[in-house]
Amino acid sequence: MTTGHVFIGMSVDGFIARADGDIGWLDDHSDPNEDHGYTDFMSSMDGFVMGRATFQKVLTFEGWEPPKPLVVASRSMHEGDIPDRLADKVSVTDAAPRLIMEALASQGWSRAYIDGGRLIRAFLSEGLIADITLTRLPVLIGEGIPLFGPVGGDIPLRHRSTRSYPSGLVQSTYDVVRSRAAV
Amino acid sequence: MTTGHVFIGMSVDGFIARADGDIGWLDDHSDPNEDHGYTDFMSSMDGFVMGRATFQKVLTFEGWEPPKPLVVASRSMHEGDIPDRLADKVSVTDAAPRLIMEALASQGWSRAYIDGGRLIRAFLSEGLIADITLTRLPVLIGEGIPLFGPVGGDIPLRHRSTRSYPSGLVQSTYDVVRSRAAV
Repeated sequence: MTTGHVFIGMSVDGFIARADGDIGWLDDHSDPNEDHGYTDFMSSMDGFVMGRATFQKVLTFEGWEPPKPLVVASRSMHEGDIPDRLADKVSVTDAAPRLIMEALASQGWSRAYIDGGRLIRAFLSEGLIADITLTRLPVLIGEGIPLFGPVGGDIPLRHRSTRSYPSGLVQSTYDVVRSRAAV
Repeated sequence: MTTGHVFIGMSVDGFIARADGDIGWLDDHSDPNEDHGYTDFMSSMDGFVMGRATFQKVLTFEGWEPPKPLVVASRSMHEGDIPDRLADKVSVTDAAPRLIMEALASQGWSRAYIDGGRLIRAFLSEGLIADITLTRLPVLIGEGIPLFGPVGGDIPLRHRSTRSYPSGLVQSTYDVVRSRAAV
């Protein structure tokens, strides 16, 4: 089956956005000239699966286009909600995580980038995430939208590597050890 | 004034204990033979300031004694609540964070180890923490007692160093950059 992979930035205190969705602080605490491996990561993916909230956020970035095929996981959106200019790159599904991954496997996807806090937790709970790369920006924002939350029990991780950058970002990659929840 | 220093273990998803205070999972995901620098850290401190909940937790560890003088910050405890065997090492104060640090400075303390989630956040909010060392254990526990929460606004950090251990622990030290809240 297609494996899920996470690559996400967050504050040291675990927030991926402010409560109103603002992510401007990510730019304030990072250096656009530093290569944090996103391009390499993305090139190893067959495409994305993204939650609705994250998709609606990226749509606010002028001229944004997905670098790979994108599936939006949403029970409230429909294909008609996709801007025409993106219609050939973006599809919408209301299927559950495991069924999404089965469908992607049948389309030949090996690896899918899973993006968005709620979606990542849902995929973690279902044992569908193979590895996670967390890049922590050197700031505490105190409140906002957390990446993590209940995931159906403990999920042991295996640390693969950590590196830090002159800007103060610390990036760790973990393999997800198959948990009870994955059985 | 005395500076505050944090040295604390947590899950990758930011929890320092389960909701019921259990910290047994810390042992399950670390290696007691690895030196994570606690002894060196502690030897550079003049003593601890600890929240009530954390103090009551450590009291459940048979024979536990603080390696340095300990001040328990609590508005509900009194000196009479301290076990007799610890009476010469432990005191109780109901003072606010800044007043605690002023009192410790007058007693000759340069550096205080600040321990316990709520207390750490209160000291961070008041600009009383100089640096934090976070040791992340390779597990997601999903829910529990978080280290972080509202701290009175953004607090920029300066990354000092990160190291990882064969057991999978990743330890980062940050200096707290003086924030608005500290003025």
